Amino acid sequence: MFRKDNPLLGEYVIVSPHRMKRPWQGQTEQPQKVELPQYDEKCYLCPGNERSGGIRNEKYTSTMVFENDFPAVLSPPGPKSPEPIHPLLRSEPIQGNCDVVIFHPRHDLTLARLSSSDIERVIEEWKAIYVKRGNQEGIKYVQIFENKGAMMGCSNPHPHGQAWSLSQVPQVPSTELTNLKEYAQRSTEELSEAPAGPNGKHCLLCDYAHLEAGQGERVVLLNEDWIALVPWWAVWPFEILLLPYKRHIPSLLELTKEESASLARILSGIAVKYDNLFRTSFAYSMGIHQRPVPPKSNSVGEDDIAHLHFHFDPPLLRSATVRKFLVGFELMSEPQRDLTAEQAAQRLRDCADVHYLEEGK
Amino acid sequence: MFRKDNPLLGEYVIVSPHRMKRPWQGQTEQPQKVELPQYDEKCYLCPGNERSGGIRNEKYTSTMVFENDFPAVLSPPGPKSPEPIHPLLRSEPIQGNCDVVIFHPRHDLTLARLSSSDIERVIEEWKAIYVKRGNQEGIKYVQIFENKGAMMGCSNPHPHGQAWSLSQVPQVPSTELTNLKEYAQRSTEELSEAPAGPNGKHCLLCDYAHLEAGQGERVVLLNEDWIALVPWWAVWPFEILLLPYKRHIPSLLELTKEESASLARILSGIAVKYDNLFRTSFAYSMGIHQRPVPPKSNSVGEDDIAHLHFHFDPPLLRSATVRKFLVGFELMSEPQRDLTAEQAAQRLRDCADVHYLEEGK
Ligand SMILES: O=P(O)(O)O[C@H]1O[C@H](CO)[C@@H](O)[C@H](O)[C@H]1O
Ligand SMILES: O=P(O)(O)O[C@H]1O[C@H](CO)[C@@H](O)[C@H](O)[C@H]1O
Repeated sequence: MFRKDNPLLGEYVIVSPHRMKRPWQGQTEQPQKVELPQYDEKCYLCPGNERSGGIRNEKYTSTMVFENDFPAVLSPPGPKSPEPIHPLLRSEPIQGNCDVVIFHPRHDLTLARLSSSDIERVIEEWKAIYVKRGNQEGIKYVQIFENKGAMMGCSNPHPHGQAWSLSQVPQVPSTELTNLKEYAQRSTEELSEAPAGPNGKHCLLCDYAHLEAGQGERVVLLNEDWIALVPWWAVWPFEILLLPYKRHIPSLLELTKEESASLARILSGIAVKYDNLFRTSFAYSMGIHQRPVPPKSNSVGEDDIAHLHFHFDPPLLRSATVRKFLVGFELMSEPQRDLTAEQAAQRLRDCADVHYLEEGK
Repeated sequence: MFRKDNPLLGEYVIVSPHRMKRPWQGQTEQPQKVELPQYDEKCYLCPGNERSGGIRNEKYTSTMVFENDFPAVLSPPGPKSPEPIHPLLRSEPIQGNCDVVIFHPRHDLTLARLSSSDIERVIEEWKAIYVKRGNQEGIKYVQIFENKGAMMGCSNPHPHGQAWSLSQVPQVPSTELTNLKEYAQRSTEELSEAPAGPNGKHCLLCDYAHLEAGQGERVVLLNEDWIALVPWWAVWPFEILLLPYKRHIPSLLELTKEESASLARILSGIAVKYDNLFRTSFAYSMGIHQRPVPPKSNSVGEDDIAHLHFHFDPPLLRSATVRKFLVGFELMSEPQRDLTAEQAAQRLRDCADVHYLEEGK
């Protein structure tokens, strides 16, 4: 056995591949419903329907964005944070906005069933939210994410994601940024062929992507601009990290037209392989990490060391109904995985590139 | 809204109490089965039954310990860790033992239904494992934990926990130890009445427990030695931290007979309140953090700054079937909770101290 190091977060994961051999007698999940109507009159995200706030959706024909009716962070601030009574009882105010991004008018589709040009429109919405919220007074980070599948807490199958914009850089992206900045201070001669980061400094993620593109054993998909891989430090069984590997790109804003198009294609490719793995609508949480907000000036800032990337955290382990539980030992001590990153990448590579519901069509 | 600081781990949590008002249309859990037989011939943990390894359990009448047939960490080491090929691709070997601790011969009981004297026997088993494994060559940490309920990945309802002993101090206890050591270096004049830690230094957890015992609003249960509270930095809806508050106690080993008995009573009290909250067998992961291994000498060591404590992480939020999902935003950015720690503590305090299945008996 061994444990692997996650340089992005400074964390570890224990790898115990032989654990896949044990029989599973625990909880099984409800398989995802595949037979959904194209329009559901009870869905508050479908075109023309009423939401819980009483507002009626437009009859939108592509993507649509609206502010969540039950936001986790509110602007202007709600109840005040408690007074600092002791150094061990500290808190600070946080505020912001929660937006919902609907990917498509059809209730029954997901990223895996959308065309690349449909996905390009979703990418354009993400860019627009990043600009709009990121330029808003007091906003320090825009977190774009998607919870897909009931297993991942998604309460509505209509294809959608969210963007929470916050007055503080939240913990995970903040730790990543710190580690990217530290890495840039080090000299990493070994990797001189990797593309240079801002001001010629080394970018941890550019170096890493370059390395993985050369090795291949953890790569799931590769196109002209993007690499999708099961990271060395993967915790979730079929976790994927998606990032540009040809040049340093701090955020969605810096993508060229071609890079946006190739991003749409690889997002589609990942979603299709995921669904094909267990022939089910594959659940996951997806999140975009990038430079916290758009730059305020034209010069290269400290935060431009951020390198745009997508995390996919899917829970399924053995089949459409048997997931990995990250519980007792994982919560109390250290994450532990039951197959190697290389095994997971191989299995995803072996999956067809045509969606199983489109087979023979 | 506000975010709170966890000084034990150096992490944050966002508190958004108004989110409880939103309607829940997402996944609901299978309620736990309450009607279990006292003996189940298909259970590999019941007395006299055969386990998957082919070994037959003794007809034990109290607690029983055996080595897991599908351990996550093996001794002697299994497959070698990959060669270090690059600073971004690091790994190190890890090995050890996985033990299973059966709490009671009866298949249908849980900590909430066991008598305090039965729980005292479980505590004695935990002490014995901590000594046996912790004194074993190469073992650096003994992680005792329990996954209770199918929702928390437990594959067998027979009351049991586990102990994974490892050749490295795992991530979470290692971070806690670092923060306890740092805190001990600081001067914390404000808290001079709190019990002193080893060598008269301040212990973060002694100071914290003292503070909470004085305030009361986050306290769930308190007896002559122990305090059970919803910590300031709780992430899980009804998370509990249980610790001794009268004196600094590095590990289970240092407990007096009386402290072991009062520990059994408060463990029973927590488990009963948990079950009563939603009148269901309440799922959780529980873990013990303490000094990594028993001391090698009689003098006070650096690791004696550890202060024995129990974490309870339960997923249920609204009812016996509606849990909190720590997904998208929580995985990608920062944990977020839907009720305040004080609200959670109040609700648990309000729960009866007699188990709902024993009512009127
Ligand atoms: O060993 P068990 O109880 O079968 O397995 C359970 O606990 C382990 C330790 O927390 C986890 O790694 C597994 O995912 C979970 O299903
Ligand atoms: O806002 P939603 O999709 O209803 O809610 C879901 O995502 C949120 C953000 O990850 C989580 O806090 C909730 O627990 C989850 O159920």
